[in-house]
Amino acid sequence: MEGLTTERGRMGARGIFITLEGADGCGKSTQAALLADALAARGREVVRLREPGGTPISEKVRALLLDPANAEMAPECELLLYEASRAQLVRQVIEPALARGAVVLCDRYYDSTYAYQAGGRGLDDALVRRANELGGCGCAPDRTLVLDLEPSVGYARATAGGADRMEAEGLAFQERVRAAYLRLAEQEPGRVRVVDALGEKGAVTDRLLAACADLWG
Amino acid sequence: MEGLTTERGRMGARGIFITLEGADGCGKSTQAALLADALAARGREVVRLREPGGTPISEKVRALLLDPANAEMAPECELLLYEASRAQLVRQVIEPALARGAVVLCDRYYDSTYAYQAGGRGLDDALVRRANELGGCGCAPDRTLVLDLEPSVGYARATAGGADRMEAEGLAFQERVRAAYLRLAEQEPGRVRVVDALGEKGAVTDRLLAACADLWG
Repeated sequence: MEGLTTERGRMGARGIFITLEGADGCGKSTQAALLADALAARGREVVRLREPGGTPISEKVRALLLDPANAEMAPECELLLYEASRAQLVRQVIEPALARGAVVLCDRYYDSTYAYQAGGRGLDDALVRRANELGGCGCAPDRTLVLDLEPSVGYARATAGGADRMEAEGLAFQERVRAAYLRLAEQEPGRVRVVDALGEKGAVTDRLLAACADLWG
Repeated sequence: MEGLTTERGRMGARGIFITLEGADGCGKSTQAALLADALAARGREVVRLREPGGTPISEKVRALLLDPANAEMAPECELLLYEASRAQLVRQVIEPALARGAVVLCDRYYDSTYAYQAGGRGLDDALVRRANELGGCGCAPDRTLVLDLEPSVGYARATAGGADRMEAEGLAFQERVRAAYLRLAEQEPGRVRVVDALGEKGAVTDRLLAACADLWG
């Protein structure tokens, strides 16, 4: 499971792995696009990804996860499907991109699994962490940016166009998700940074860029 | 993750969980049917299952796993898909059946994952065991029957009608799978029993029944 480290060492390259996190409706998709543009303007190859998905196999798993017809899905099954989709993305896309020196910007990664499954659904904390170790294949983000928003605001945004299976969980669920993100930021202050998601789009992007400026040395 | 024990205790029932294992072409499907008939003749409810599969969600995951179009699947993704399919089967079917006192007979379970992923594919042993803990949701078989066959014999049988993705791995792969099964039987002699798969069908069924006769007390 140490393929990434070995690969980076052999190539002499040094990619940067940034993940974007936050509860539903925090503006992640919009900010991922703006952030990718800003990073590309610095002359780096930017690989923009979205979880779950990003490879043909991962997209098939995503379809299973988000289909309301699969409402009888057990929490452990859901957890492991997220990890399966992730492992494919890491091995097929993220590791090769980092090995050639690219900036990888991923909309959700294993901290989402922690926030939603351990936080939102109340699955055992250690269980979710073990699953994340398996799905992440040892590939940890250099920086994780959490777009933070009052859950009532984000929830109203997320459900405005109709709720998918995850969003149908309700406001209390989103509040537990937020609390889990804030807990992660406390536990890993070097990697995980909380960024205020309220305000004008460009201003939020500037905050995100500032929160990872040190990675460019 | 201790739902099974709690459930069994509360119901006062005591199901029996038997898994059937072996390399491709060992005759598992045939023997599963014969064994199920023999067990049903004893007046017990018999729930016969096949892994991966057994629930609508698990069958969708099975389709992903066995589709030759998904040949680019990373080993870690494959491992986690098997576990996801398994977790759904355990929570939705196996645990409820055991709780009402049924005999559950499952054609493949997590020992297949050990034999194929750790043995056949050479994935890290501890990694596969951790994944099995997650996918099995703490639900361990009371008895695991390994149908043992010289790999060259089983391989010829299994590929006679065309090879699926797994069977396309070749004979050396099947030999590593067999070795892994025999290793498990050494490590867990109480649970895992090796049964000779050669000979007349009815004779093999009798051997299987003898190897789990103690479970009926």
